[in-house]
Amino acid sequence: YPGTYGALTPAANDPMWGYFTAIAGQDGEVDAMELQRCLTQSGFTGTYSPFSLETCRIMIAMLDRDFTGKMGFSEFKELFVALNGWKQNFTMFDRDRSGTVEHHELTQAISSMGYRISPQALNAIIKRYNKGGRIYFDDYVACCVKLRALTDHFKRRDTMHQGSVHFGYDDFILCTMAI
Amino acid sequence: YPGTYGALTPAANDPMWGYFTAIAGQDGEVDAMELQRCLTQSGFTGTYSPFSLETCRIMIAMLDRDFTGKMGFSEFKELFVALNGWKQNFTMFDRDRSGTVEHHELTQAISSMGYRISPQALNAIIKRYNKGGRIYFDDYVACCVKLRALTDHFKRRDTMHQGSVHFGYDDFILCTMAI
Ligand SMILES: [Ca+2]
Ligand SMILES: [Ca+2]
Ligand SMILES: [Ca+2]
Repeated sequence: YPGTYGALTPAANDPMWGYFTAIAGQDGEVDAMELQRCLTQSGFTGTYSPFSLETCRIMIAMLDRDFTGKMGFSEFKELFVALNGWKQNFTMFDRDRSGTVEHHELTQAISSMGYRISPQALNAIIKRYNKGGRIYFDDYVACCVKLRALTDHFKRRDTMHQGSVHFGYDDFILCTMAI
Repeated sequence: YPGTYGALTPAANDPMWGYFTAIAGQDGEVDAMELQRCLTQSGFTGTYSPFSLETCRIMIAMLDRDFTGKMGFSEFKELFVALNGWKQNFTMFDRDRSGTVEHHELTQAISSMGYRISPQALNAIIKRYNKGGRIYFDDYVACCVKLRALTDHFKRRDTMHQGSVHFGYDDFILCTMAI
């Protein structure tokens, strides 16, 4: 009977577990190429173009707290929750279904996620992520991933909630280069 | 005679000026797609694979102090100086001419550029930029661009040279999201 062959882990009861192990392969973790294949095959991006390897790498970096460059099961699930949120958000603000959001749409999308960012910083973000004035879904997700990871790093250090943080050089490089 | 049609700008005497204007086109500035085309056609990467659009975007972001997403002539020349340095550096550390550098080679390359980075931060950087354990020239340049831009941002704020900086949230996001 069950139990004889070792206790079932909670993960094994999870409907996503089988899916995860199939993608992860032998090493039991998902790297950027495996993630890209999985998101392409699952049709996650729908009518939008598939994710670039670059975006897959920063998705993993966002959750990769131990810097292995790979994702375990709990991170994998966490990523899907975040991705679903960003996809909903993108679809909502891409009103004409062009597959892109424009300047004012991105401004709305970012503020709807609760970020408070100055027009100057928003402008810099748009300049960085647009192609011909439009922001595609792939770049939108890359932008959301970075914004979330950087904000998390900042908040974790802003223990007094003063909106201001002290960074040593090495810590600054560690936080910002990994993303 | 010269002068009748307006004073010659110093740029017009520069041997690179004609090349720049041909690439820049009507708007007189070089964007990421124009830069990618130019670096591919010029054969800059040689036997290495051409630069991704992503790397071209962050090359521009590094020098784009007014956040227009484009490069003028002086930035264009500055970029070529930096690129030549990185290419030399890469070729020097890629001893077996595999077109990639590995963990210890990147460590040497980065310290040869004068950066002092802890093993933990270096490890995070390698995890972020490697593909299958190897770092390709395209990603190497992306890494160098980011490291330089982030270090510049840090230094500009570290006026007392204490190796420690105060960041407000918006300033932190502006510095780090644009790259
Ligand atoms: Ca749209
Ligand atoms: Ca142009
Ligand atoms: Ca090599």
